[in-house]
Amino acid sequence: MYNKLTPEIIEEIKKVSDNVLEGEDINPDYAKDEMPIYGTHMPDLAVQARSTEEVAAVVKICYENNIPVTPRGAGTGLVGGCVPLYGGVLIDLSKMNKIKSYDMENFVVDIEAGVLLNDLAEDCLSRGMLYPPDPGEKFACVGGNVATNAGGMRAVKYGATRDYVRAMTVVLPTGEITHLGATVSKTSSGYSLLNLMIGSEGTLGIITELTLKIIPAPKAAASLIIPYEDLKTALSTVPKFKMAHMDPQAIEFMEKEIVLVSERYIGKSVFPQQLDGADIGAYLLVTLDANSEDELDALIEQAAELVLEAGAMDVLVADTPAKMKDAWAARSSFLEAIMEETKLLDECDVVVPVNKIADYLVFANKVAEECGITIKTFGHAGDGNLHIYECSNDLEEEEFEKRVDKFFKAIYDEAIRCGGLVSGEHGIGSGKVKYLVESIGEKNMQLMEGIKRVFDPKMILNPGKVCYRL
Amino acid sequence: MYNKLTPEIIEEIKKVSDNVLEGEDINPDYAKDEMPIYGTHMPDLAVQARSTEEVAAVVKICYENNIPVTPRGAGTGLVGGCVPLYGGVLIDLSKMNKIKSYDMENFVVDIEAGVLLNDLAEDCLSRGMLYPPDPGEKFACVGGNVATNAGGMRAVKYGATRDYVRAMTVVLPTGEITHLGATVSKTSSGYSLLNLMIGSEGTLGIITELTLKIIPAPKAAASLIIPYEDLKTALSTVPKFKMAHMDPQAIEFMEKEIVLVSERYIGKSVFPQQLDGADIGAYLLVTLDANSEDELDALIEQAAELVLEAGAMDVLVADTPAKMKDAWAARSSFLEAIMEETKLLDECDVVVPVNKIADYLVFANKVAEECGITIKTFGHAGDGNLHIYECSNDLEEEEFEKRVDKFFKAIYDEAIRCGGLVSGEHGIGSGKVKYLVESIGEKNMQLMEGIKRVFDPKMILNPGKVCYRL
Repeated sequence: MYNKLTPEIIEEIKKVSDNVLEGEDINPDYAKDEMPIYGTHMPDLAVQARSTEEVAAVVKICYENNIPVTPRGAGTGLVGGCVPLYGGVLIDLSKMNKIKSYDMENFVVDIEAGVLLNDLAEDCLSRGMLYPPDPGEKFACVGGNVATNAGGMRAVKYGATRDYVRAMTVVLPTGEITHLGATVSKTSSGYSLLNLMIGSEGTLGIITELTLKIIPAPKAAASLIIPYEDLKTALSTVPKFKMAHMDPQAIEFMEKEIVLVSERYIGKSVFPQQLDGADIGAYLLVTLDANSEDELDALIEQAAELVLEAGAMDVLVADTPAKMKDAWAARSSFLEAIMEETKLLDECDVVVPVNKIADYLVFANKVAEECGITIKTFGHAGDGNLHIYECSNDLEEEEFEKRVDKFFKAIYDEAIRCGGLVSGEHGIGSGKVKYLVESIGEKNMQLMEGIKRVFDPKMILNPGKVCYRL
Repeated sequence: MYNKLTPEIIEEIKKVSDNVLEGEDINPDYAKDEMPIYGTHMPDLAVQARSTEEVAAVVKICYENNIPVTPRGAGTGLVGGCVPLYGGVLIDLSKMNKIKSYDMENFVVDIEAGVLLNDLAEDCLSRGMLYPPDPGEKFACVGGNVATNAGGMRAVKYGATRDYVRAMTVVLPTGEITHLGATVSKTSSGYSLLNLMIGSEGTLGIITELTLKIIPAPKAAASLIIPYEDLKTALSTVPKFKMAHMDPQAIEFMEKEIVLVSERYIGKSVFPQQLDGADIGAYLLVTLDANSEDELDALIEQAAELVLEAGAMDVLVADTPAKMKDAWAARSSFLEAIMEETKLLDECDVVVPVNKIADYLVFANKVAEECGITIKTFGHAGDGNLHIYECSNDLEEEEFEKRVDKFFKAIYDEAIRCGGLVSGEHGIGSGKVKYLVESIGEKNMQLMEGIKRVFDPKMILNPGKVCYRL
């Protein structure tokens, strides 16, 4: 259904871009993201774009010639979203990495889409500002964060990436350039194409530039490691924080097993494993922020009282940057630690209502046992977004995939049943399309596919992703 | 292009609805909203729906017979959004006014779309909770607030209606019922049809039920009336609040003239007009909230210091509910007060970057003078959303409309030039369609019209609104 690149088309592309890579010059990493189990495929040509106009000119040629185009940032996705499943042209945006300007009266920053989250976060902090979205992977491109509406640790207080996107420049599948949104925070000016583009995973347009909301950085922060005998008691604490107006910037839960794996991997033990002879079953890792040290001290005291009353076994306070780094080190290494211990890995980031997490995990563990796979779980207790990793151990790929598929069907069904959704922050990519349709239903899927065709009549942009069922 | 209702079709509709109104039983108010200057038109039939299923059954019949359908809440819109311009069937949702249930672990409330904002706000407060969106008109239906992404006073701190919609039930133009979103706060599960529906002004579907986010209510609040010699100095204070981490829940600006008009109308004077012999030119009206009286007192002191240093002439503190009500009385009556003094009225709610407000208003006043119309302005200083009322005084309608159109063209152009948008919170309706296309451009308009056709292939739902150019 697509055309193949010809020498003539390649010549045309080279006329509008000085950054074309062919043959062996194409980085083999361009064939995959962090979850190769969803399929890998090399592009026929890669462009390391430097400007919106260059992206537009390349896409226009591809559109005219019916060549598939796949946009890519840092390739840190977990659902196969940036894999050029049909070959064609891959457009790497990671060289468009300029932080262009700050506007400190309207509290926005203008950037190119290839800026790394870590670079943006540090640059903002150096000016006393905070870019709140905080996905676990700090070396993703911000454009990719927007394309997946990435969430992260601080979403419980500050919201997801969507909440920080004011405006964007987009190259449409036809090669036209358009601007969505404005610097302003409030708008009711027609259908929100801006919000439609956010989370569309590079299937409706290629985001090349962004205007992002930033806020003054809180002046003080501390983290609490809170051990509990079991996960259910830990999770029952979560709504209490909100009702007490405490509003932690992060509330992560983790079962003991995954903490052990991760601390083994990083070679450092910070989380207690026993207290006065009693076994610890689960932890909350909570970060509080405030606008003065005094306010923070009062918050810590209030939080400690609250959790001890709610059944916590103890409270460990990490109130210096070094101690906070240690407290988060195990959490930050979960993915790498799990990868180290298994041959094959699959993942889901299902989201369920907060008060259903505990029962849902009991269910997931039961199903995993029935399916004969090992799972490791952790997640964002404050917003119900769970990360469930499936490990193959010694299983062969075919058998592992069969069992994981059975497992996914059961747990996604259960998530939908209790009011949740397929993905909280990773997106759908190619890996979750079949589960999405069961979750949102045939009618919503038809609407999404209709919208896709409005933006991309030839279906050339990032084919096989989100709603495109072949 | 549409069919007329026949006795047979009316019979069909009566089979699925017990709430059909015909002929003289149809309320003449159904022909208009609060801004009749954009056109009035009676429906041929009205249905006061009581359930999603009833709405769906009526819409299905209309779809099959190619009859236009216009949804309506309380009719408090300001851009003609609920006027049945092509006749056909009007569906009044204001009887679907049940607050169904609260979920205090996930902090959401389930309601029918016809619940009045005022009723929801009071019911939430009686449980210690806050539904933050706070548009000036408290007797609008929440469904209409969602359909226009209504903003309001508290948007500067808490965000607009969009930020509080977790999920909804929608009747599509085909009569199918679908559900968008989920109780969860984080999602990356396909294109955000939820965000597309929010702000689509009843052109893509009829919102019948909503799941809304609520938050624990702040425990203390106070308002400050802050007089300045001129508007520019007043507005220059605004970013300083944020940088000082004060985060007021409302920052309204008003020029002296409109305060005088409004205080004359309500017959009560609260705002000072002179101070130590010096004339006051403009005011900020600021509301601060906090989680204790002590915290609030500290905030008030900090705010007073900040504004006096920034050039305020004085600070008047309203720290009891009665005093706060007085402080807001003039602001709440602006629209009624202006209506009282003019024969014809038009309005715009343009939004510009916060640091451009002062220059923009100088420009608007100059253009108004050139066009020979009187304007009155106030607005949300914290988010750049301005309300500019055009008064006809003694002008005849045709001449007034000619002058206003010239005025609008100039000021919308200027808004776009400085990075703003046509509407911050009122929407596009039928009144602003021609200005929208100039603002967002032909390509974005085409995308919107393409999306409209995906949802509504026969274009029967709320025709003539938002992106439907006849």
